[in-house]
Amino acid sequence: MLDPAGEATRAAAARLGVSGVQRLRIGKAIQVDLEAADRATAEAQLQLLSDRLLANPVIEDWSLELSDAG
Amino acid sequence: MLDPAGEATRAAAARLGVSGVQRLRIGKAIQVDLEAADRATAEAQLQLLSDRLLANPVIEDWSLELSDAG
Repeated sequence: MLDPAGEATRAAAARLGVSGVQRLRIGKAIQVDLEAADRATAEAQLQLLSDRLLANPVIEDWSLELSDAG
Repeated sequence: MLDPAGEATRAAAARLGVSGVQRLRIGKAIQVDLEAADRATAEAQLQLLSDRLLANPVIEDWSLELSDAG
């Protein structure tokens, strides 16, 4: 994936004197608190939201981490 | 922190039929591969980059997770 903001930031880091940056990627992090009947329902709903609403699959990769709030 | 994009996305999720969203926050995730003499140096350099370059402390909170690549 292209990441022009990440590339520009890597160059700016070197100008700030931090020369050891090998790689710098800027992405989005989305935190969702979701009430659902069970874990499978929650996962299906989050897959739907990620595909249809949260990510643009043409230009973005995404991954999902699920944790139980109890 | 205000998060108008997160609020709008929460409303859009409900329109997509996902009604259980209690909270939805959109933020940035920045991944940096950094070569440094030791862990303390790496952490100091990342603190500097975060404060001066990566985050806008007026409108953004940030936190840092360090992991060794070996």
